[in-house]
Amino acid sequence: MRIPKHIGIIPDGNRRWAMFNSMTKDKGYQHGINPGLEVFKLCQKEQVEEVTFYGFTVDNTKRPKDQTIAFTKACIDSVILLTKEDCEILVLGNTESNCFPVELLPFTTRRKFGNGGIKVNFLINYGWEWDLNLLKNSSASNKNIQRYIHSKDISRIDLIIRWGGRRRLSGLLPIQAVYADFYVLENYWPDFKTKDFYNALAWYDEQDVTLGG
Amino acid sequence: MRIPKHIGIIPDGNRRWAMFNSMTKDKGYQHGINPGLEVFKLCQKEQVEEVTFYGFTVDNTKRPKDQTIAFTKACIDSVILLTKEDCEILVLGNTESNCFPVELLPFTTRRKFGNGGIKVNFLINYGWEWDLNLLKNSSASNKNIQRYIHSKDISRIDLIIRWGGRRRLSGLLPIQAVYADFYVLENYWPDFKTKDFYNALAWYDEQDVTLGG
Repeated sequence: MRIPKHIGIIPDGNRRWAMFNSMTKDKGYQHGINPGLEVFKLCQKEQVEEVTFYGFTVDNTKRPKDQTIAFTKACIDSVILLTKEDCEILVLGNTESNCFPVELLPFTTRRKFGNGGIKVNFLINYGWEWDLNLLKNSSASNKNIQRYIHSKDISRIDLIIRWGGRRRLSGLLPIQAVYADFYVLENYWPDFKTKDFYNALAWYDEQDVTLGG
Repeated sequence: MRIPKHIGIIPDGNRRWAMFNSMTKDKGYQHGINPGLEVFKLCQKEQVEEVTFYGFTVDNTKRPKDQTIAFTKACIDSVILLTKEDCEILVLGNTESNCFPVELLPFTTRRKFGNGGIKVNFLINYGWEWDLNLLKNSSASNKNIQRYIHSKDISRIDLIIRWGGRRRLSGLLPIQAVYADFYVLENYWPDFKTKDFYNALAWYDEQDVTLGG
């Protein structure tokens, strides 16, 4: 089976899951922490080299306070959980805003935990405009783009998996996503099942790779 | 029904259609011209304000010569056909390369035909890196991105429809596509049916619009 080198995860549907389960919207996020750990372990098992979790964006921080507090806490807890595993963590996002949690500042350069190995990226207070605006600091003679954006340490994505049924990228790493294959699951992220992951891999295995050619 | 203001069209599957119909790959493209005109007329009828056709990319020009000649001709013919209609045409792509057809140079600033109305964009010898590299000429203090890229005259896309079953953007306007809903049809582009378009619109009507919020 052809395994993607880099998988992007869009863990959507936490609020809809909470409402469906008679909770207030903010209560959904904490139920998304374990699915994240499970996906990480499956990636590790299948020798995926890099996985990126779409934590929260600058756009998201305009939501009601109880929700922003809840998803920020869920993201912090998710990163801390992964420090107990063998991996190399990078947290990427706009640290110059109050919305970036100080607890995650130590992870803004990639750090190795345990025996290292798989790279895990968390996008935290990430914004696609923030990411790409750095290009304006670069010389026009520098042909490459990827090397001159904030997310330069995150590689091209092969497969994006989105939970919660929506068929859009919602600003996830526009440069790394240009050639990515996009797989959407209807179930909400807190209802993650192991077979979701393997269905996505099986589908990816059937796709060709042209990189636009 | 909620009609998208701007639809992006990825007319994929011409070569697979040709092979399926016992032709050489290059013969598929000419069968994609009429579907383009049909989609245009449907957009016009449903009062879509802008439609973008993914003609060919810098990546595509690395294909065998008979294919590049065939898709270039099909794109030229498609644009010329539309000059008989009421619309405002813009052809966008890297004109500094030999792969850009001289026949389409007159359309590289938007021109009105007939009574004007719907904007039609053709991406011809387009490259996402070429598009975004222009950002490097901009001052870092210019916050907006869209305004400083080559495709600045093309608006945000609401709905992308792709024929031919592949679930990827393949470098289509990464900035305008960040929040776009993405609808994929399994049939090849030359097998376009009117119901493809209406199925996409019906699906789009069921989506919410959050713009990342």
